Amino acid sequence: MNSYMINLGKRAKAASRKAANLTITEKNQGLESVAFTLVDETPSILQENEKDVNAAKEKGISEGLIDRLQLTPERIQDMAEGLREIINLNDPIGDMNDFVTRPNGLKVGKMRVPLGVIGIIYESRPNVTADAFGLCFKTGNAVILRGGSDALNSNLAIVKAIKKGLAKAHLPEDVILLVEDVSRETAKEMMGLHEYIDVLIPRGGAGLIASVVENSTIPVIETGTGNCHIYLDEYADVSMALPIIENAKTQRLGVCNAAESLVIHSKILNEVLPQIVEILDKHRIELRGDERVRALSSVIKEATEEDWATEYLDRILSIKTVDSIEEAIAHINKYNSAHSDAIITEHYHNAMKFHREIDAAAVYVNASTRFTDGFVFGFGAEIGISTQKLHARGPMGLDALTTTKFIIFGDGQIR
Amino acid sequence: MNSYMINLGKRAKAASRKAANLTITEKNQGLESVAFTLVDETPSILQENEKDVNAAKEKGISEGLIDRLQLTPERIQDMAEGLREIINLNDPIGDMNDFVTRPNGLKVGKMRVPLGVIGIIYESRPNVTADAFGLCFKTGNAVILRGGSDALNSNLAIVKAIKKGLAKAHLPEDVILLVEDVSRETAKEMMGLHEYIDVLIPRGGAGLIASVVENSTIPVIETGTGNCHIYLDEYADVSMALPIIENAKTQRLGVCNAAESLVIHSKILNEVLPQIVEILDKHRIELRGDERVRALSSVIKEATEEDWATEYLDRILSIKTVDSIEEAIAHINKYNSAHSDAIITEHYHNAMKFHREIDAAAVYVNASTRFTDGFVFGFGAEIGISTQKLHARGPMGLDALTTTKFIIFGDGQIR
Repeated sequence: MNSYMINLGKRAKAASRKAANLTITEKNQGLESVAFTLVDETPSILQENEKDVNAAKEKGISEGLIDRLQLTPERIQDMAEGLREIINLNDPIGDMNDFVTRPNGLKVGKMRVPLGVIGIIYESRPNVTADAFGLCFKTGNAVILRGGSDALNSNLAIVKAIKKGLAKAHLPEDVILLVEDVSRETAKEMMGLHEYIDVLIPRGGAGLIASVVENSTIPVIETGTGNCHIYLDEYADVSMALPIIENAKTQRLGVCNAAESLVIHSKILNEVLPQIVEILDKHRIELRGDERVRALSSVIKEATEEDWATEYLDRILSIKTVDSIEEAIAHINKYNSAHSDAIITEHYHNAMKFHREIDAAAVYVNASTRFTDGFVFGFGAEIGISTQKLHARGPMGLDALTTTKFIIFGDGQIR
Repeated sequence: MNSYMINLGKRAKAASRKAANLTITEKNQGLESVAFTLVDETPSILQENEKDVNAAKEKGISEGLIDRLQLTPERIQDMAEGLREIINLNDPIGDMNDFVTRPNGLKVGKMRVPLGVIGIIYESRPNVTADAFGLCFKTGNAVILRGGSDALNSNLAIVKAIKKGLAKAHLPEDVILLVEDVSRETAKEMMGLHEYIDVLIPRGGAGLIASVVENSTIPVIETGTGNCHIYLDEYADVSMALPIIENAKTQRLGVCNAAESLVIHSKILNEVLPQIVEILDKHRIELRGDERVRALSSVIKEATEEDWATEYLDRILSIKTVDSIEEAIAHINKYNSAHSDAIITEHYHNAMKFHREIDAAAVYVNASTRFTDGFVFGFGAEIGISTQKLHARGPMGLDALTTTKFIIFGDGQIR
C-alpha cells in the first residue's frame, strides 16, 4: 500500500532523521530565513488567503471564524515575529543528564531527543501553521500539518513560503508537510499512521479533540477544554476574592482558563453573594445557581446537573454552595475538566489540602485561573495546554515535543 | 449505562481518590500486611491455582505456559518478598519541585501525583497480579487488573488475599479490582473506559499489545518487543566484541533485550566472522546472513527482508554487512523496534554518533544489550520496558506510574 498519506508519512520519517541531527545554529538560521521569507511573500500569501476568505463569506461562515481565517500584513509580520521569538528559546536537544554509575561500571544516563514526526490537526486558523512549524522545527522534529479545509489556500501559500525559506538556508524542506487532500478519508488514514507519526496533537474545539482521541492509534496529546472552578473557602479574604472572580470570569470569555463555576462555602454565602451579583451584573454575566443561592437572589437562574459540567466560554457562570472544603473538592473533582481550579482562602491547611487533592493540570491558591498559559509560566512558547496525565500536563513548552533515550557508556560489560 | 465494567471503573475512580491521599506509612503498612496475608493464604491460593493448572493441562497448553501459570509455596513467598522490596523504595508522591517566581509574584511549581486509575491487561501469569498491585499501590493509584482467563481462579484467590491484607490494615479494598468476567466484550469495554481509567498498560506478547494499541481510547504505554542489534564498527576491539555478542545472544534467549541481529563493518568481516561462527555454534545458534556473509561461511543461511525485522526470541541470529557507520545506523533505525541497540567501537566520534543517531529506548557503547532492565539501571522496580516515546521510554520505575500537576501559590494576582 502506497497511498498519499503513507507517502507523506515516509517522507516525514526520513526528514525527521535529518532534522534530529541539525545543530542549534542551523535550526536558528532556518527559523530566521523562514521568518524573512514569510514577510517577503506577503503579497502571494494575502492573495491566496483572500480566496479562502471570499469562499468562507459565500458559505455564510460566522464573523468570528472569518476573523480567525483572515490574514493581514500585520498578522504575517506577527507570524514572523513568533518564529524569531522561538530562535531565542533554549534548544534542549542533545542534553545529557541524570547519569549514574552502576556497580558493574556502566554509566547510565539520558539524552534529550526529538519525538520524531509530529502530526497536528487543527481548524481554519492559518497562524497555527507557522507557529506549529516553528516549535516542531526548533525541537528537531518533522511535522505533518492538517489544517481546516476552509484555510487550504492560505496554508498552501504559507507552507510554500516556509519551504522556500528552508531551501534558502540549505535545510530539508520535508520537515514540514501539509496534507493537501483534506478529505475525511485522509484524516482517518492519518490517525492510523502510527508507523510514521510519533504523536498526534489536535488543536481546536472539543469535537475535533474527541474525534481524534476516539479514532487515533497514534498516541495523542489532548489539549483544551477548561471547566475551571473558583472555590471561596469559609476563610476567604473577600476583598481578594472579588477581583479574582471578576478577572477569571470576565477578562476574556472564550478562553480555556476562564472560570465557569463558582463554589462557595455556606458560611460566607450571605456576605459575598450580593457583592458577586453586583460585580458580575456590570459585565452582563448570567448566573445559574443551586437552591440556596437562588434563595438569596432573584436574578439567579436554576443550575441543572448539566450546568455543573459545562464549559460555557460565554457570559454565564454557575454557582454551587457547599458546607465544607471536602464537599467543595469532591464537587470540583467530579465536574472539572482537569484544567485549572482555584481556592481563595487564608487558611493554611485548607490551601495545602486543595493543592494536594484537586485533580487538575493547574491548582491555584489565591490567584486567577487565567494564568494557566505557557508564556505566563515562563516557558517562552506554548504548544497547547494538556489536560491529560501522560507525557505532558498543563501548559506545554518545547520540552513536550521532545523525549529522552537512555544512553549507556560501557567498557565491555556483559551480564 | 451501568454495565459491569463501568461499575468497576467508577469504584476504581472513587478508590483512587482515597489512595492518592494515603501517607507513606499507611501505604507501607498496607504492603507489609498484604505480603504477610499472601503467605498466610498459601493453601487456598495453591488450591485455586491447581484448578487452573489442571484445566490448562487438559486443554493441552504448552509446558512453558503451564510453568508460568503454576504456583508453589516458594513462588508465593517470592511475591511477598517482591512487595516487601517495594516498601523500601522511595515514595515520590507529593514531592514539590521546579518552583519559579514569576514577575507578578506568582510561585509556580510542580507536585508529583498518582496517575489515578491504571488498567493492566496481561496473560496467564499470576505473579503479575501481586507485582502490579504493589507498584500501583505504592504510587497511590487504584488498579484494574485483567489477567488471562487460564489464570482466573489463581487471580481470584490472590486478589482475595490482597484485599484481606488491605482490610486488616484499614485500607480501601477497591484500590485493587479484578475483572472477573474475562469475555471479549468486557475486554473491549475496558479499552473504552477513558472516563475512568487514566492509562492502560498491556503486559504480554506482541499480539496482545497490538490489539490494545489498536482498540484503546485510553492512553496506552506500549511495552515489549525488542529487535535488538549489535553493530561491530570497523574500529571494534574484537576481544571485547566476542564476549558481548555471545552474552547478548545466548545468556537468555527469550527476553526482549536479547540481541537478534548483528551488523558488521565490511573492513573487519573477514577477521571476525569465523570467530563469531565458532562461538555461536557452541550455543547451537542458527545464523542467517546477507550475500557477503554467506560467501565467507557455508553454515550461514540466507537472511530475507523479513529476517531483518524479526524478534526471534530463539536460537537464531541475523547478520548484515555494511560499508560505513552511516549505513549501519540507517539499517538499524529502519528495522529495530526502538528497544536496545549497541555499538562496539574504540572510535570516539563513531561512539558519540551512534548514541546521538540511533532511535531506541536504550543505546549502548561497548556493552551487552542485556542490561536494559529497571533493576539493573537502579530503579529498584520495573513495570515494563516502554518502547514508545511519550511519557516513559525504556525501563519504567515507579515514576512512570505518576504524573505532575502545576501548583501555584498566589496572593491575589489577577491578569
